[in-house]
Amino acid sequence: MLPGFLARAVELLLGREGRSLHVKAAGAATAVLAMVTLLGAWAVVVAEHGAPRANLRTYPQALWWAVETATTVGYGDYFPVTFGGRVVAAAVMVVGITTYGMVTAALATWFVGREQRRRHHLASHARELSEETVHALHERFDRLERMMAGDGGRE
Amino acid sequence: MLPGFLARAVELLLGREGRSLHVKAAGAATAVLAMVTLLGAWAVVVAEHGAPRANLRTYPQALWWAVETATTVGYGDYFPVTFGGRVVAAAVMVVGITTYGMVTAALATWFVGREQRRRHHLASHARELSEETVHALHERFDRLERMMAGDGGRE
Amino acid sequence: MLPGFLARAVELLLGREGRSLHVKAAGAATAVLAMVTLLGAWAVVVAEHGAPRANLRTYPQALWWAVETATTVGYGDYFPVTFGGRVVAAAVMVVGITTYGMVTAALATWFVGREQRRRHHLASHARELSEETVHALHERFDRLERMMAGDGGRE
Amino acid sequence: MLPGFLARAVELLLGREGRSLHVKAAGAATAVLAMVTLLGAWAVVVAEHGAPRANLRTYPQALWWAVETATTVGYGDYFPVTFGGRVVAAAVMVVGITTYGMVTAALATWFVGREQRRRHHLASHARELSEETVHALHERFDRLERMMAGDGGRE
Repeated sequence: MLPGFLARAVELLLGREGRSLHVKAAGAATAVLAMVTLLGAWAVVVAEHGAPRANLRTYPQALWWAVETATTVGYGDYFPVTFGGRVVAAAVMVVGITTYGMVTAALATWFVGREQRRRHHLASHARELSEETVHALHERFDRLERMMAGDGGRE
Repeated sequence: MLPGFLARAVELLLGREGRSLHVKAAGAATAVLAMVTLLGAWAVVVAEHGAPRANLRTYPQALWWAVETATTVGYGDYFPVTFGGRVVAAAVMVVGITTYGMVTAALATWFVGREQRRRHHLASHARELSEETVHALHERFDRLERMMAGDGGRE
Repeated sequence: MLPGFLARAVELLLGREGRSLHVKAAGAATAVLAMVTLLGAWAVVVAEHGAPRANLRTYPQALWWAVETATTVGYGDYFPVTFGGRVVAAAVMVVGITTYGMVTAALATWFVGREQRRRHHLASHARELSEETVHALHERFDRLERMMAGDGGRE
Repeated sequence: MLPGFLARAVELLLGREGRSLHVKAAGAATAVLAMVTLLGAWAVVVAEHGAPRANLRTYPQALWWAVETATTVGYGDYFPVTFGGRVVAAAVMVVGITTYGMVTAALATWFVGREQRRRHHLASHARELSEETVHALHERFDRLERMMAGDGGRE
């Protein structure tokens, strides 16, 4: 169950099939999140620099802080104390939440699409039946015309 | 990939196409969230005023607290200690979570709609085919009538 | 924009239309969440009672703790320190997250349904057209039969 | 309302009907989350071992920490202080968030599918009507042929 599922996920993220909007949007959001995490960690150290009670002083600390902020865990071991640092934090939070929302939405779209494709097979079966119907009607016309031609010939 | 995606997002939020329920609901929820954050920050300062161990004392502090509460990060650098302040906090939490849920749901609806429109093209192709079928049947009737008229004329 | 939206939300939660699975599920989950919050606050006080470093000692404190736990904010002003209290906490967390997931899913279903009903109008328009087609075919048969009757009568 | 809903949930998780992608994916994600929580608790104790200010020292503490991290509650009573421990924490956070996103997406798919099946009944009703139409057209052909045969016979 799992290996096939993971293989599919990798295929969707890297592969040829990944052209749908939802996969592209989730991928783009993840890329933006990675960038905002890396830049936000740098920006918060710059913003907090020199503040008396600042606890975000080095880039490695700030990177860890950015990760726990983007995931909304927020242990409270590190947090910004300046206005600038808090604006950076708000941006990291919003981008983090939106990214996870986009991943959830992309998963939902993938699931819904799969369910509908299953029903689509039923629908295309119905379409084949309707082609048979049209064929049958044409055969009735052919027969009518042959009858009329025979009728005319008999005279 | 990204610029087109962002342009589309802006267009959806501001633009002429933004008439669907899900875009309106996500926009309304964001507006309510902004209002609740601004008002909640003010209300929590009022509610906490005079409490012995209160740590939410000024509006800027409370605004930062409201942001980290609405996003459910909750570092623990600020938190309400009175009953009134905690009721305000609960309201900010619930509005924040519901807004992000609405944004996620709106994204899912947008993605699902896009996928279905792709299939809709297939469906309208099928409809064109069925119009051709109807046209063909009418031509068969025309031919039959000409045959009958000819049949009648030959007599 | 907003008043109509809220009126609709209230109507869906209380009203006659609220028979769909997703509305019932979101309502049931909210009821379960309220119950788990109230019971969990009581259970955690019982579980923590007597533990040396326990900080959850009274029901009002525990109720506030249950709210910030169910919303996953977790300031860290209160937290369980015993095994029993932590099991209660895990239950409150899981029920809280599932409830918000259910609300998000119900919103998505509502939005998607609305979008599809819009397209459904187009589909029923197409169905009317196809009824016109069938009517036209029957008229062709009527005319053919009249022609044949006339043809037969002319002889 | 609730008992039927719970019975259905259990049936979906355990039962014969649970073959859809979304149920399998949500189940697999929950299994992965359980595994990552158990392994992550062990890995973080190993990673933090010997660090001067480490607060994650025993497996039971670490298990509780893994639960509050995977749910993104993050009280701040325990948190990793080493690079290795923080990498483990990031993995637990991402797996936790993705799992809850998958559960939300699976719920949305289930709700949407239910709504569409309701409409599907309408669609299959329409299909029956179209079968009646085809039958009526064949009857018109039968009548025309009988008329022609009678016409031919009258001569």
